[in-house]
Amino acid sequence: MDSGKRLKIAYIGGGSFRFGWRFMSEMASEEICGTVSLYDIEKKPALANEVIGNKFREQKGCRSDIIYLAADNINECLRDADFVILSISGDMEDYVSDLHLPEMYGIYQSYGENTGPAGILRALRILPHYIEFARKIKELCPNAWVINLTNPMNVCLMTLYREFPQIKAFGSSSEPFSVSELLAEITGRSLSVPSVHRREIKTNLVGINGFSFVNEASYNGMDIMPIFTEFAQKYADDGYERRPEEFRLNPAACANKVRFDMFLRYGMIPAQSDRITAEFCPPWYLRSPKTAASWKFAQVNINLLKKQQTERAARSKLLMEGGDSLRIGGYTSDCISQIKALAGMGNLITNACLPNSGQVENLPKGVITETNALFSKNCVRAVTSGGLSEELYALTVRHTVNQKLIVDAVFEKDLDIAFNAFINDPLMSADLSSAGELYKEMLTAVSTKLLYYTS
Amino acid sequence: MDSGKRLKIAYIGGGSFRFGWRFMSEMASEEICGTVSLYDIEKKPALANEVIGNKFREQKGCRSDIIYLAADNINECLRDADFVILSISGDMEDYVSDLHLPEMYGIYQSYGENTGPAGILRALRILPHYIEFARKIKELCPNAWVINLTNPMNVCLMTLYREFPQIKAFGSSSEPFSVSELLAEITGRSLSVPSVHRREIKTNLVGINGFSFVNEASYNGMDIMPIFTEFAQKYADDGYERRPEEFRLNPAACANKVRFDMFLRYGMIPAQSDRITAEFCPPWYLRSPKTAASWKFAQVNINLLKKQQTERAARSKLLMEGGDSLRIGGYTSDCISQIKALAGMGNLITNACLPNSGQVENLPKGVITETNALFSKNCVRAVTSGGLSEELYALTVRHTVNQKLIVDAVFEKDLDIAFNAFINDPLMSADLSSAGELYKEMLTAVSTKLLYYTS
Amino acid sequence: MDSGKRLKIAYIGGGSFRFGWRFMSEMASEEICGTVSLYDIEKKPALANEVIGNKFREQKGCRSDIIYLAADNINECLRDADFVILSISGDMEDYVSDLHLPEMYGIYQSYGENTGPAGILRALRILPHYIEFARKIKELCPNAWVINLTNPMNVCLMTLYREFPQIKAFGSSSEPFSVSELLAEITGRSLSVPSVHRREIKTNLVGINGFSFVNEASYNGMDIMPIFTEFAQKYADDGYERRPEEFRLNPAACANKVRFDMFLRYGMIPAQSDRITAEFCPPWYLRSPKTAASWKFAQVNINLLKKQQTERAARSKLLMEGGDSLRIGGYTSDCISQIKALAGMGNLITNACLPNSGQVENLPKGVITETNALFSKNCVRAVTSGGLSEELYALTVRHTVNQKLIVDAVFEKDLDIAFNAFINDPLMSADLSSAGELYKEMLTAVSTKLLYYTS
Amino acid sequence: MDSGKRLKIAYIGGGSFRFGWRFMSEMASEEICGTVSLYDIEKKPALANEVIGNKFREQKGCRSDIIYLAADNINECLRDADFVILSISGDMEDYVSDLHLPEMYGIYQSYGENTGPAGILRALRILPHYIEFARKIKELCPNAWVINLTNPMNVCLMTLYREFPQIKAFGSSSEPFSVSELLAEITGRSLSVPSVHRREIKTNLVGINGFSFVNEASYNGMDIMPIFTEFAQKYADDGYERRPEEFRLNPAACANKVRFDMFLRYGMIPAQSDRITAEFCPPWYLRSPKTAASWKFAQVNINLLKKQQTERAARSKLLMEGGDSLRIGGYTSDCISQIKALAGMGNLITNACLPNSGQVENLPKGVITETNALFSKNCVRAVTSGGLSEELYALTVRHTVNQKLIVDAVFEKDLDIAFNAFINDPLMSADLSSAGELYKEMLTAVSTKLLYYTS
Repeated sequence: MDSGKRLKIAYIGGGSFRFGWRFMSEMASEEICGTVSLYDIEKKPALANEVIGNKFREQKGCRSDIIYLAADNINECLRDADFVILSISGDMEDYVSDLHLPEMYGIYQSYGENTGPAGILRALRILPHYIEFARKIKELCPNAWVINLTNPMNVCLMTLYREFPQIKAFGSSSEPFSVSELLAEITGRSLSVPSVHRREIKTNLVGINGFSFVNEASYNGMDIMPIFTEFAQKYADDGYERRPEEFRLNPAACANKVRFDMFLRYGMIPAQSDRITAEFCPPWYLRSPKTAASWKFAQVNINLLKKQQTERAARSKLLMEGGDSLRIGGYTSDCISQIKALAGMGNLITNACLPNSGQVENLPKGVITETNALFSKNCVRAVTSGGLSEELYALTVRHTVNQKLIVDAVFEKDLDIAFNAFINDPLMSADLSSAGELYKEMLTAVSTKLLYYTS
Repeated sequence: MDSGKRLKIAYIGGGSFRFGWRFMSEMASEEICGTVSLYDIEKKPALANEVIGNKFREQKGCRSDIIYLAADNINECLRDADFVILSISGDMEDYVSDLHLPEMYGIYQSYGENTGPAGILRALRILPHYIEFARKIKELCPNAWVINLTNPMNVCLMTLYREFPQIKAFGSSSEPFSVSELLAEITGRSLSVPSVHRREIKTNLVGINGFSFVNEASYNGMDIMPIFTEFAQKYADDGYERRPEEFRLNPAACANKVRFDMFLRYGMIPAQSDRITAEFCPPWYLRSPKTAASWKFAQVNINLLKKQQTERAARSKLLMEGGDSLRIGGYTSDCISQIKALAGMGNLITNACLPNSGQVENLPKGVITETNALFSKNCVRAVTSGGLSEELYALTVRHTVNQKLIVDAVFEKDLDIAFNAFINDPLMSADLSSAGELYKEMLTAVSTKLLYYTS
Repeated sequence: MDSGKRLKIAYIGGGSFRFGWRFMSEMASEEICGTVSLYDIEKKPALANEVIGNKFREQKGCRSDIIYLAADNINECLRDADFVILSISGDMEDYVSDLHLPEMYGIYQSYGENTGPAGILRALRILPHYIEFARKIKELCPNAWVINLTNPMNVCLMTLYREFPQIKAFGSSSEPFSVSELLAEITGRSLSVPSVHRREIKTNLVGINGFSFVNEASYNGMDIMPIFTEFAQKYADDGYERRPEEFRLNPAACANKVRFDMFLRYGMIPAQSDRITAEFCPPWYLRSPKTAASWKFAQVNINLLKKQQTERAARSKLLMEGGDSLRIGGYTSDCISQIKALAGMGNLITNACLPNSGQVENLPKGVITETNALFSKNCVRAVTSGGLSEELYALTVRHTVNQKLIVDAVFEKDLDIAFNAFINDPLMSADLSSAGELYKEMLTAVSTKLLYYTS
Repeated sequence: MDSGKRLKIAYIGGGSFRFGWRFMSEMASEEICGTVSLYDIEKKPALANEVIGNKFREQKGCRSDIIYLAADNINECLRDADFVILSISGDMEDYVSDLHLPEMYGIYQSYGENTGPAGILRALRILPHYIEFARKIKELCPNAWVINLTNPMNVCLMTLYREFPQIKAFGSSSEPFSVSELLAEITGRSLSVPSVHRREIKTNLVGINGFSFVNEASYNGMDIMPIFTEFAQKYADDGYERRPEEFRLNPAACANKVRFDMFLRYGMIPAQSDRITAEFCPPWYLRSPKTAASWKFAQVNINLLKKQQTERAARSKLLMEGGDSLRIGGYTSDCISQIKALAGMGNLITNACLPNSGQVENLPKGVITETNALFSKNCVRAVTSGGLSEELYALTVRHTVNQKLIVDAVFEKDLDIAFNAFINDPLMSADLSSAGELYKEMLTAVSTKLLYYTS
């Protein structure tokens, strides 16, 4: 990577009106110079983003020099890329069956992207594409840094590494910001410091994406775990929300009751928001919709998602025509900062998902972990982060074993292997024959997306 | 151990009319010479067994020279023992609450001694005694071989080793005979050999007590796994019982459907009977009584147990008066054979529970495993047995972690620690607050047996 | 393996007048029925052994029913074998250069077959044949039990397993009998028991072939380590020999001074005789011929070996003509007993070399260990044996790493890789350039045997 | 650590005219505010340094605000310290016997502080003080950051952690700068960039102090390993020195021949200068003074050291009187930078010695490793660095085992334990009885410093 040259960034899933817009907004606020090649299965939204992205250059305050170009095909997008962003989402309708069929069997999920029956089905649909991505990257840009944003994060990365072991891939997730933001807020209140930013909170992070934990936290060198402990004890029963009952309207919000409960029992703070953490546990927090409500977090609201989708589509027209514009900046992800650090513009320490080479002491080598990592020019290295407590280890290892089974199933094109992950999922409270029926129904519902397995 | 001398065998729980009678019957058929000291919390049944045991000497066909003596206290029983048998059972009434309270929360168990809410409560009651046993053994007979027969096997042994690391203890379980007997029967049928005995079937056994597995089996040097595979496929749907529907009358019987199912999915044959195996899994086979019935195994029948208890009490009177006599021989356990081998009367290879020193490749060092072991004069050594398949490992490691938590709870006298095992049990499908309520109710129901924890 | 049928035993190296004769003598004393196919690079001695072996049938006291047949080629020898014995020796002349060239550089060896410069050169010559053996066995008798007797034991077995991972191979070494015999003698003297046999001494054995150790020993259930400790302390300075100064005449004899020294420092008794143990250490015992003499063990005497070779050749003629006969019985090896146990004629516990699957706790998985193993019908399983003491571990791990390098060198046909093992050998006290020269000279001396590497 | 407050730095060994002056010079160039408490066994040089250090404040260009104070005793020095610097050196005369006695036995060392007979004797003298340091730190400043500069680095740190496991200690060594400086120079030449600084070279460092290795190196994001490989091949035979034959005059210089040799054989570049690396190997490079000369590195020159010592003593008088002054700046160590980072003045990534928690994949947990680490406010975390190549692992593990033995010997006050490390040292080419004699002679020579062991 020559530091003077224009970067080529390949964006797979580049027709996104969600992360795509955030990405372009944040790009605009940085002194980066390069070309972003947008590829999407549907070319139309990629073309829309080409237009929207290129408008930034005219906007006041834009610091970057980026040309956006919709790619005709994936090869064109990837060829000679310095960075590859993988950020694909599924079809909303698949999501409906992923979540609603299990409910017929008493299995409720709050997020549905990472784990549980919904996460497994999602993985089965998405991972064949990841095998293909890895092959193309090996062929067209083997030295590129590959940043995965797609869920289920752990199996997506595991698939890339299995197909192309030399790949320089990591996962960038903003879920762990959740705990830093809460710690920042608590610390500010406790120390009467007006506005502590999440970046000022230094944590030790350990676990897997979706189920990672903080066991050390400091602000300005001061240990703030005692502050958090007191806070957790105080709010364990009623929960804590910045805006009371916000979780009912905004599913991304929560009252941190799951966080407090797990911390008080296990001594480590869940890094991600409650609806994510809850799905990785036995049905403690998700036995029924009522249970979730009593823990004050929301289940995913598909109607809301669909409404947002429609609104964004409408807005995209406006943006293209210049009737509206995206705000510059934002920083809800560290993706741009990671690109900058890798391109040689300063070191960065932030959370990243990487194959375990020792950073998590008691997880097996090779599983995808989420810990802090050090980003510097053309280099990412995980920071040693100690191990999970024994109880959290037992909860976690089920997932790492299941993840391996899911990836095995994909590489061997054998849906029976994935069934073993399905019935070993902690949320799977059905008896075995019901589980078998449910699995068949779920496969049938999305059968057109699973043709890969019958080939 | 001087081979000529009379052995002293301390029998803790020596008032038993179940294993106690079996023990005495089998003793009578061996050329062993010694004294068995019978200790029980209630002295009366121990005295009854003293009388019953000593009658064997007059019986025709008795080959042993054993004097039975009821001990006044545990110290008298243990002092200078060469062997210690630990075989205690709980109060039937505790068993009732162990099993029935969880049913109010939709949690069903089929055996209730090893794991699940019932197994945890049982452990909490029994293990404080085991700390005491270990202390007494360390003081009174530190070189004795200690044979545990009590359930929950794994945590009983773990407790002994934690309190007295140099203890020469192992667990003797007859549950793995179940798979050998089935293999013997199948092999006999398949090869048209009239009566194959379980001892003629050689297996490789790997796992933990209650959840151990066979992945190699041979008869007379011939690999019989292909025979079993064909058999399992043939009978997977309808199950196989020697006497059809026997499981409805005899809870120890089963149709092996769970065995076939797990074998066909995981490639390793559950060693124990279905009702034991099922309890170590998620609620696959125990979602409801109907589920269990569809898998053709019975749940424990407490009324039947109570009836048998009453009948045995009645018979004990007859036996003492000489109006009835126990049959010599039997061999439903390997306990006597193990004693003989350790006393120098020939080598023996059989299953045993021992701390892992490498015999199970992928379980942590120190957990109690169940594998084959080599018994010779004053020596027991586990045989290397390879590892569990990855899926079975994930199911097993939850139990080994839970077992550690239970033992921690006992040593730290902290019932909150045990609660973490309670809610991490695979059968625990309740939400967290319901689980909390259930735990409190179960503790309350047996509170007089848990005074240890409040001290 | 059908127990009634005639066994087919393939004997590679079947022209041996050393182990070959011992093998036939011992065979004759057992009720075994079968055919032994003798293959040797030179057919003449194999034919001689055919004649000599078949004469046993006429001899009084012969209990076996064995037909010996010299094979024309290796395929004929191996095809459908039930057992394969690998027992090849090198050319005496190669041995001369192996030993004498290093002496020019101040490096002295006492045995020269297992390790040190001589052992490495020997491995480089022999292992290419072992790759070939493994291929042939895979093709012609994949289910045969393969018994290796050739040195260097560890790398021979490692090569077989690398080429054919499913091979059923183990190593049979009589070196560990050395410690059992000494323990038997000491025990007999100490307890005034007239003749204790080595088989009556039960030991726990742990390590690698040529460098294995006993840390537990009992006789009739009695711990005899205290007896040995006292003995070692008493004789540490002067050594102990049954016949004083025997080591000067019989290189297989020794005064056990190395054994006592290592035991007193490390707490574990070297299992093999001193001249073998010494070679695995830094030049503690082999700095010069004088050093060896002060430790009262002999270096290998090639003139003596040559003389014995000539004598045996002469005797072979006599034996063929019937002018002399071999004695039936002997039991200086457990090879026949192992065959019997594997063929289903009773269980056997004895030392064996096997890939580590956990039997030695602190050696890496897959290295070839020497521990006790359980032989039963068609089954060998190592017995868990604990670990090496830390100091012995550090001495041992150098050898296991070197062994891997040697095997790598052979599979990659790259003599530079083996050079790293050469200079990392504990006996290598030369500086690096001298070591390089020596290596070249040694390779040159046997260059006709190393053509494999230039192909 | 409150960031506004004056730092208290305790300097044990504060009478040093070597590192002490460098420390003060570098301190003067940084904006640090605090008190440095100088403690030394001899108070006089500490008082001299108090005077010399306090003169900096008057010097032009001094940016720090530091008060130097000689402490009357160690308690006064350590009490409430924020940082503790441990930097003690031995008596020059001890060094003489450490090095010269082994030469009588043909054992030559080039540095004598880290390993080999000299390093072991040094450790035996120094480590009892380290037990005492750890105890005092635990009592007087348990939250201080403890920076060790004393050799033998690995056992000093191991001792601190053994005595006080919660200690916040790490080792700061400038030896790895050696490889960075060479890489910087080569890179500058190769790319025609005028002056590349060692800090601009980014490496992955893995190993133990004195024997650590670089397997990745980049300059400005560009992989420079190919440049180094070409260079190493070119200069392997003749070596490379900036100033030819400099090594003859300056023992710290070398021709990198050892570095090139090991890299070409093992694929990892020794991080430290040749005379350090050579001592950790078998006598490859140190068989005799001639061998060392042929590899173009110098052995330690005690006369030169003594001369420098005398010169510094003379200069100290001048400095106190103001007739001379120390230069501000220098940066031959990262110690000051590490203090700054820990005090919250910016993050730092540099090499550090820390107990292994996973940063070196194939070294045991708990041994002291040398890798890169991330320094931030009140936090040091090692960066995951992969593992050593198998050959280097085998060379290294001997040292880690020996180090443990040495520390065991110190804690158990048992010089026999240390003898096992002595004879297992790779440089120990003597036979066992000579080694025993040498050990006794070396102990006797410094017996007044070893009274601890007889208490």
